Amino acid sequence: MTKKPLILVTNDDGINAPGIRTLISIMKTIGDVVVVAPDSPQSGMGHAITLDSTLYVEQVFIDDGPQTEYSCSGTPADCVKLAIREKLTRKPDICVSGINHGSNSSINVIYSGTMSAAIEAGIEGIPAVGFSLLDYAWSANFEATHDFVKTIVENVLNQGLPNGVVLNVNIPNLSKEKIKGIKICRQAKANWVEEFDKRKTPQGRDYYWLTGKFVNLDGGEDTDEWALENGYISVVPIQFDLTAHHYIQTLNTWNLND
Amino acid sequence: MTKKPLILVTNDDGINAPGIRTLISIMKTIGDVVVVAPDSPQSGMGHAITLDSTLYVEQVFIDDGPQTEYSCSGTPADCVKLAIREKLTRKPDICVSGINHGSNSSINVIYSGTMSAAIEAGIEGIPAVGFSLLDYAWSANFEATHDFVKTIVENVLNQGLPNGVVLNVNIPNLSKEKIKGIKICRQAKANWVEEFDKRKTPQGRDYYWLTGKFVNLDGGEDTDEWALENGYISVVPIQFDLTAHHYIQTLNTWNLND
Repeated sequence: MTKKPLILVTNDDGINAPGIRTLISIMKTIGDVVVVAPDSPQSGMGHAITLDSTLYVEQVFIDDGPQTEYSCSGTPADCVKLAIREKLTRKPDICVSGINHGSNSSINVIYSGTMSAAIEAGIEGIPAVGFSLLDYAWSANFEATHDFVKTIVENVLNQGLPNGVVLNVNIPNLSKEKIKGIKICRQAKANWVEEFDKRKTPQGRDYYWLTGKFVNLDGGEDTDEWALENGYISVVPIQFDLTAHHYIQTLNTWNLND
Repeated sequence: MTKKPLILVTNDDGINAPGIRTLISIMKTIGDVVVVAPDSPQSGMGHAITLDSTLYVEQVFIDDGPQTEYSCSGTPADCVKLAIREKLTRKPDICVSGINHGSNSSINVIYSGTMSAAIEAGIEGIPAVGFSLLDYAWSANFEATHDFVKTIVENVLNQGLPNGVVLNVNIPNLSKEKIKGIKICRQAKANWVEEFDKRKTPQGRDYYWLTGKFVNLDGGEDTDEWALENGYISVVPIQFDLTAHHYIQTLNTWNLND
C-alpha cells in the first residue's frame, strides 16, 4: 500500500468557517490531514505576517476524524510558517488553502489571505493550491465543489508543481450539473473602483468604510473572469517572482547613472 | 513654466518615520506633494486592506512646507485608495512609497507594506516606485539616498512606466561615495528560514515570536541581492499580473476534465 500523502490545510476565513470544514472533509478522503488555521477571519490580509506581536497556537477539536487541528492567532502566512516549523513532523506533500467564501480571481489574488497562505507554502517548496467559491455568504453551499477539488488535488499530488508556481482555483456559485468543467486561465486585467462611504461617529468625527465596484476591462476569453462568467472553474498558475522581465531591457536604456 | 508634477507620498513605517520625512523633503524639490500615510507602523502588512473596520483620515502638520499631509488609521494600500478617491483633486503623476527602514529586496517584496502601496498605485494606473534603505534602525541615515531617489523619480516622471509595472528600489546602507551606481535587476530567488522563539507567558501559556534567517540561494549576478551586496542600488521592475504564463501549456496537458 502506498504511503498516504500528508496534507496541510489552512484558510483565511478562520478555522470554524464552513469552507475550511468542507476542504478538510474532502482532504480526509485523500490523505493524512493537519490543519493550522487562523482563530478568526483574516480576509483582505494580503500577505501580512506578524512581526511585532506574539503568536498563539492551540490544538482544537472541531469535527470528528483522524485529522489534527490547530487554531492560530496569526495571519494565514503565519499559520503556514508555524505549521512547517513547529507542528508538522515532515514537509507536507501539498498545502491547500480555503475554500474561501468569495472570489479570489483576477486582481483579488493580491489582497487574498487564502492565496497568501498558498504562496507562503510555495515559497517553502511545497505544492500549493488556493480554492475559492464565488459566494461570500457564511452559509454558502460548498456541495458542488467536492469532486472538482478532489480532482485538482489528486492531479497536483500526481504531477507535482514546479518551484515557484502555485494554483489559484476559483469555483462559480453553481450546482454541480451546471459547472461546465475546469479551465486553465490567465489572471484577468480587472480591478476595483473603490468608493468610500463617508460617515460621522456619534461624536461627529469623520470616518470611512471601504466599498467598491469590481470592473473587468479584459475582453480575453482565456482569463479567469471569462471562465467563471461562463460556468467554468478557473485554474490560474501564479508565481511569486514578481519581476517584470519584459521591461528590464527598456529600463537599461534610462540614464540612471549619468 | 511647465506645470509641477503632483506627487503622492506614502509608506508603511508610519507618517512620523524618518524615512518618509526624507522622501517628502526630496519630493518637495520636484513637485507638489500630498502625503497620505499610516498613523502607526504597518511593516509586514503585505497587501492588507481594511474590510471589516472603519478608517480615519486626519490632516496633520509635521514639517514646515507647502505639502499637504494626512494621517490614516489604515494599511498602506488603504492610504493609497483613500488618497486617490477622497483627498487628491486629480490623479497624481507619480506615487512614491518609503523610504522604508529595512530591505524589501527579493522575496521581501511579498511581505512589504511599502511595496503594496506602490502596487496599489500601479493598479490604479499611476507610475509608482517603492524605496527602501537596508537599515532597519529608526535612526537610519538617509543622507546618501537623496540624489539617487531624485534621479529615479525624475526618470519615471520623464519616461513613464507601462501599465502593470512598478519599481522596487533598494539602497545599500553605504555612504554616497561608496555607492557604485544604480543597477536594473531581477528579483533574487531567496527566502526566509523561519525560526520561532517559543516562550511561556507569566501564566504558563506557550507563545511564539517569529524570527528567521535570510537565505539567498540565487547565484545570479543580475539579481537585486547581488547588486546590493556589491554596493549598487537595485531597481527591479515588478508586476501584479501574477500569472505563471510559462506553465499554462503544461497544465493544459493534465486530465482535469476526465
